Amino acid sequence: MAEFTAVGRPIPKLDAIDKVTGRHRYPLDVTLPGMLWGKVLRSPYPHARIRKLDVSASGSMPGVAAVLTWRDLPRKRLGFIIKDHDVLASDVVRYCGEPVAAVAAESEAAAEAACQAIEVEYEELPAVFEPEPAMAPGAPLVHEDLANYEIRAVSTAATMPFIRPQIGTNICHHFKLRHGDVAAGFRAARHVFEDEFSFQMVHHAAMEPHSSLAQVTPSGEVIVWSGVQAAHRARQWLAEYFDLPQSKVRVISLKIGGAFGGKITLSLEPIVVGLAQKAGRPVKIVMTRAETFIATGGRRPGRMTVKSGVDGDGRIVARQVKVLWNSGTVSESGPISASLAALLSPGPYRIPNVHVDSYLVYTNTIAPRAFRGLGAPQVLWGTESHMDIIAKKLGLDPLEFRLRNAFEDGDIAPWGERLHSVTLKECLQRAAAEIGWYEQKTPGAGRGLSCIWKWTVPGTLSQALVKVYEDGTVGVMTGVADFGTGSSTIMAQIVAEELSVDVENVGVVVGDTELTPYDYGSASSRSTVHGGNAVREAALSARRQILELAAAKLNVQPDQIELRKGQIWLADRPDEGLPLARFVKGYVLGLGSFQGGGLGQFDPETGATPRATHDWKWGATGAIAEVDRGTGTVRIRRLVSVNDVGFAINPLNVESQIQGAVVMGLGATFLEEVVFDGGRIVNPNFMEYMIPTATDLPDEIVPVIIESRKGDGPYGAKGIGEPPIVGVSPAVANAIDDAIGVRIRELPITPERVVRALHRIAEDEGAP
Amino acid sequence: MAEFTAVGRPIPKLDAIDKVTGRHRYPLDVTLPGMLWGKVLRSPYPHARIRKLDVSASGSMPGVAAVLTWRDLPRKRLGFIIKDHDVLASDVVRYCGEPVAAVAAESEAAAEAACQAIEVEYEELPAVFEPEPAMAPGAPLVHEDLANYEIRAVSTAATMPFIRPQIGTNICHHFKLRHGDVAAGFRAARHVFEDEFSFQMVHHAAMEPHSSLAQVTPSGEVIVWSGVQAAHRARQWLAEYFDLPQSKVRVISLKIGGAFGGKITLSLEPIVVGLAQKAGRPVKIVMTRAETFIATGGRRPGRMTVKSGVDGDGRIVARQVKVLWNSGTVSESGPISASLAALLSPGPYRIPNVHVDSYLVYTNTIAPRAFRGLGAPQVLWGTESHMDIIAKKLGLDPLEFRLRNAFEDGDIAPWGERLHSVTLKECLQRAAAEIGWYEQKTPGAGRGLSCIWKWTVPGTLSQALVKVYEDGTVGVMTGVADFGTGSSTIMAQIVAEELSVDVENVGVVVGDTELTPYDYGSASSRSTVHGGNAVREAALSARRQILELAAAKLNVQPDQIELRKGQIWLADRPDEGLPLARFVKGYVLGLGSFQGGGLGQFDPETGATPRATHDWKWGATGAIAEVDRGTGTVRIRRLVSVNDVGFAINPLNVESQIQGAVVMGLGATFLEEVVFDGGRIVNPNFMEYMIPTATDLPDEIVPVIIESRKGDGPYGAKGIGEPPIVGVSPAVANAIDDAIGVRIRELPITPERVVRALHRIAEDEGAP
Repeated sequence: MAEFTAVGRPIPKLDAIDKVTGRHRYPLDVTLPGMLWGKVLRSPYPHARIRKLDVSASGSMPGVAAVLTWRDLPRKRLGFIIKDHDVLASDVVRYCGEPVAAVAAESEAAAEAACQAIEVEYEELPAVFEPEPAMAPGAPLVHEDLANYEIRAVSTAATMPFIRPQIGTNICHHFKLRHGDVAAGFRAARHVFEDEFSFQMVHHAAMEPHSSLAQVTPSGEVIVWSGVQAAHRARQWLAEYFDLPQSKVRVISLKIGGAFGGKITLSLEPIVVGLAQKAGRPVKIVMTRAETFIATGGRRPGRMTVKSGVDGDGRIVARQVKVLWNSGTVSESGPISASLAALLSPGPYRIPNVHVDSYLVYTNTIAPRAFRGLGAPQVLWGTESHMDIIAKKLGLDPLEFRLRNAFEDGDIAPWGERLHSVTLKECLQRAAAEIGWYEQKTPGAGRGLSCIWKWTVPGTLSQALVKVYEDGTVGVMTGVADFGTGSSTIMAQIVAEELSVDVENVGVVVGDTELTPYDYGSASSRSTVHGGNAVREAALSARRQILELAAAKLNVQPDQIELRKGQIWLADRPDEGLPLARFVKGYVLGLGSFQGGGLGQFDPETGATPRATHDWKWGATGAIAEVDRGTGTVRIRRLVSVNDVGFAINPLNVESQIQGAVVMGLGATFLEEVVFDGGRIVNPNFMEYMIPTATDLPDEIVPVIIESRKGDGPYGAKGIGEPPIVGVSPAVANAIDDAIGVRIRELPITPERVVRALHRIAEDEGAP
Repeated sequence: MAEFTAVGRPIPKLDAIDKVTGRHRYPLDVTLPGMLWGKVLRSPYPHARIRKLDVSASGSMPGVAAVLTWRDLPRKRLGFIIKDHDVLASDVVRYCGEPVAAVAAESEAAAEAACQAIEVEYEELPAVFEPEPAMAPGAPLVHEDLANYEIRAVSTAATMPFIRPQIGTNICHHFKLRHGDVAAGFRAARHVFEDEFSFQMVHHAAMEPHSSLAQVTPSGEVIVWSGVQAAHRARQWLAEYFDLPQSKVRVISLKIGGAFGGKITLSLEPIVVGLAQKAGRPVKIVMTRAETFIATGGRRPGRMTVKSGVDGDGRIVARQVKVLWNSGTVSESGPISASLAALLSPGPYRIPNVHVDSYLVYTNTIAPRAFRGLGAPQVLWGTESHMDIIAKKLGLDPLEFRLRNAFEDGDIAPWGERLHSVTLKECLQRAAAEIGWYEQKTPGAGRGLSCIWKWTVPGTLSQALVKVYEDGTVGVMTGVADFGTGSSTIMAQIVAEELSVDVENVGVVVGDTELTPYDYGSASSRSTVHGGNAVREAALSARRQILELAAAKLNVQPDQIELRKGQIWLADRPDEGLPLARFVKGYVLGLGSFQGGGLGQFDPETGATPRATHDWKWGATGAIAEVDRGTGTVRIRRLVSVNDVGFAINPLNVESQIQGAVVMGLGATFLEEVVFDGGRIVNPNFMEYMIPTATDLPDEIVPVIIESRKGDGPYGAKGIGEPPIVGVSPAVANAIDDAIGVRIRELPITPERVVRALHRIAEDEGAP
């Protein structure tokens, strides 16, 4: 590592002490003088017409400053791409928990009381809760007026012709991937297999609940404190919705207490802004824990079928996938997720004939949101389970079956893109070795493998500013959010590396649209690559400027001096550092910018595109599982997550990201499920919705870092936030099958499901 | 005005509504969760040795989190230039009110109680309170160890050899201006006159008292909310004092509730930082109104003699000035003030022989601070009164006497600098005309004139950032402070002008060292010129970048398109504006920088310098006064302030600055005086220290704006914050003498002094 001084080093997160000592100030902690508290009145019905909405009684209650309904808001809808999101319902409510009105009052209790005093008369309407019935002819429509909804990414003129809601139905998006001739492929195959899998809604379970505080100045400027992952886009959305200049909207997200995708889009923000505008005072709303379940949807649930044709050599010759995604009432990031997950759904394999249909379907449930992995964990749950089913049936070694079909560098993907930096086979072999694949099997312990494959959101921008102070210390300002990922520490290390200063002397500012230049936000494992490249360019620009200033003043060539330890050093006087204050007056400011690749546009009929994403991440998961055949409980002895991160700018942080993602993946595999009774969530609390505790963890979690240096982030780095979660569920299911010979096709893998599957086998074996 | 669209227009301050409706959030209003309140224990003696300082009792009192003494702080002194300021006294206290210890507790009451419980034993020492006794041989020394004090401007390696404390005395600075041969000049003169004048300490009386809130993160980052005029220098001072990287210190001043020079240097900031470091929680201190008087000194008091030789033609041939400034215990900005005011002290006149001695003398009183005009109002009070005394004695018209001697463009000042943009005569004639100088005198109404002449602090830097958003609206970030001056509005107008957008679509951010690039701060009437030039350059840079981006995308030359109303317009399609979002992704960032002129260095023996200051401001004041001979009360009928502002970027704002400065000048002329009994202030409140109310104002205040376009700020602008205060007192005194034939030589001009002067004349006339 002599090559580097600050990157490549396992330093603790710079804010770790603040956080573990409870001194960190989260967005939730912000208060303003004269601040009011808000509460939201939510629909008790999954689908109903609002016959009456009378707020007169509540408006005159003690301590109430403002009552907000749709009449006070712009006649507009919000939306990530499809504008299908009413901030407050007007004539119709479409899910249990939909905001109908909101109150700002002197206390939360007064606001709650006033909410209860609002008179609403509903007329219940027929509702649908699952994609299949929602797609059936004659199904109740979630959005009657879908034909008139606008489709447009925020603040750009870009249209997205491949996203086409099917008017008159509940299908809001149908992504098609077509490659070769799948029917001919199946005809030519020696074996054909078909399996069905389902996946549940998983809650983000961020420790900091959603909260939002808005201040509106009399001149109309809006400041919003809110834990959003994409402060700059939140600013754009709010400016557009309220018809405000972007320069008059400031979003401050600080460092957030967990997000995982659930804080990318707006939740409370437009409501508190509306209340603050009406009340003329700042208004804050903090969701109760139940509200975080009811009012912000989790990971997108659905089901999929995978059908494969395999030839006599164990090569996959055709694969057809159909995925049905439950979109809930609004599409959120769903059209992107359903499209890019569709590309992943055949798995990372060379298959000459591929046919995928990915349907995103409106229903009357809370809309799922982006969630770590954005669709990849769901489709690879099915496909990587299916791979082991095939291997078992054909008597092939599952590793060998994968290696025989796996992508290699330079392969052409089914949508026409040439794949680069593919290190999949190396990752698979390493995962296999780490779980003793090549050794004798321990009795009772099953082993399972899966591939990790993940894209990054295409075509996004990061900018960064680096300030060098007169004392040689440095500040970096980046729109990359930090919700516990350690991105701030990564940025500090990059700056320290390029400017030859100590990491401790780098201050990092994130999460304030006034402080930081533009950034698409932290999502899709893009921060290290996009934000990191922008920060590095900014640091290099500052370095160049300083050397030029110093060279001019010292009357030497820039190559006769260097910048080190926040000082200038003459080549011929290596013992005497000259303070920057002699050369720098004020700040030296370096600006960096990085525009990610990928088009975000696809042929609507075939899914073809020359570049689907900014980059591809590769890895593999290995699991060793033991199962108690009596109780159905599964014990994971060893969980290995191998990830090609290109270059680990902070190995400690990479390991912690892998560990966190693995644990989250295990929660989704074994424990976590948002349970609906019709449109109503029945377990919106941490007593009934269980996330893993220390006792639920594997005996060992083994993060393995592969450094191919093939990423196009700084120093060859790739992102790591999401990939390790992608392969957890299928690796575990494959290990369970290896241990006890039962195949679980539904998530979560509860003890009941394991026991029931064992019983089914026993019945099958006992049958005549 | 067709030349401009946004500048040159009289728009109200953009934050006016916020402020008059009470919704503006001042630094004082900021609170943090878990915040403690602090109180300061202050010395009751003007000079004493601390024999014992025992905080053990107070530290264990209920609610007390930390008690701070000098033992907890770095072994260093602060100082604007001379490091003579103890944050907390160690062995010696040097003035009544000097901080000895500080307490942080759960409430202000608990902190105050704990302060009272601190045991201090003092041994009183002999003290001096006025410059003359302090300069006498054998006087008690305020600083015994002066020889070892460091002399250095903050964070630069610049030494200041012309500032030389006289070791073994209380003289901390003696500035000498020597030009020609003044003794020969007096010998050759037909007439010689000598007068003595005195000037009192005036309090800043900012409506927002000094307050400061510090947060220290466990990793040691320091954030300070404080209404300082120079946030970036406050950051530098604090970083240097606490040995912190500048990147880990953030100062947030927001928009301040009045400053007037009293908030340039540090007050509570190092104390709250020390307390927050020790308590491990945020700590806030708000000064009581009495503390603002006792703990922050006002305008620098002193006395001066002016001696002039005049030839037979009414030309001044020699002038000798001696000024004694009371520096209190620390020098603050005094060495700069005493030096530059020395240059002004002979008046803006061509005088071949000049000799000035300006002494800054330590005493055991609270140290005066920078105050609007920084010495100019005091020395011109004397010299411009003296001018009328001479004219009267010689039977010359005071206007004609001034015009005969006044500087013209290109004249060489006594220190060797060629003066430029001199519009003094035009201003004088205009002021004379506005008070009916050329008309018959109204019986009982006296008329008085004075010159306005003011410098701007030399060699300072401003930087600015301009952000253009995708929707064509704009943000500007500047380290210029706004404490009610309207500077934010000026910056918005400049940006609006250069980017052809509406002023309403420009957001201005000030007062946060993280948000804004470097700025020396708002002082010395420099903001419009320095900050404005930097902002303009930043806007022009952004404009250039946008036009290049659009030209490239549209495949045209940049001169075929223009940027207007936040859109791009093709020359041949003037009806169709293209949205910026088509060309701009993220922000376009423009950086601007302006380095002011002037050396800030003088020959220690002669005061010679090729450029004393960044620029010179010229103007004139005219007053019409009526005096009640019975009560001695003076009624100002008309007060005219003529100022060459170069170009009025916002004429409404210029007028309000002139009105404000005139009212402040009238307060200092008639009402305001910080009264000392020995070292103790006896009137630290607004019952006994009187500032002007509406009933004290003149019948008419007439702001006259001269636009010579000769300033080197944007569009030819000059600064206006200070000049109008400079000439108020002598114009009024001259008008009083014109009305009733008495000459007042001491400020303030109280009714008692007028009556006493009338009695003296009566006695003189009645004498044999």
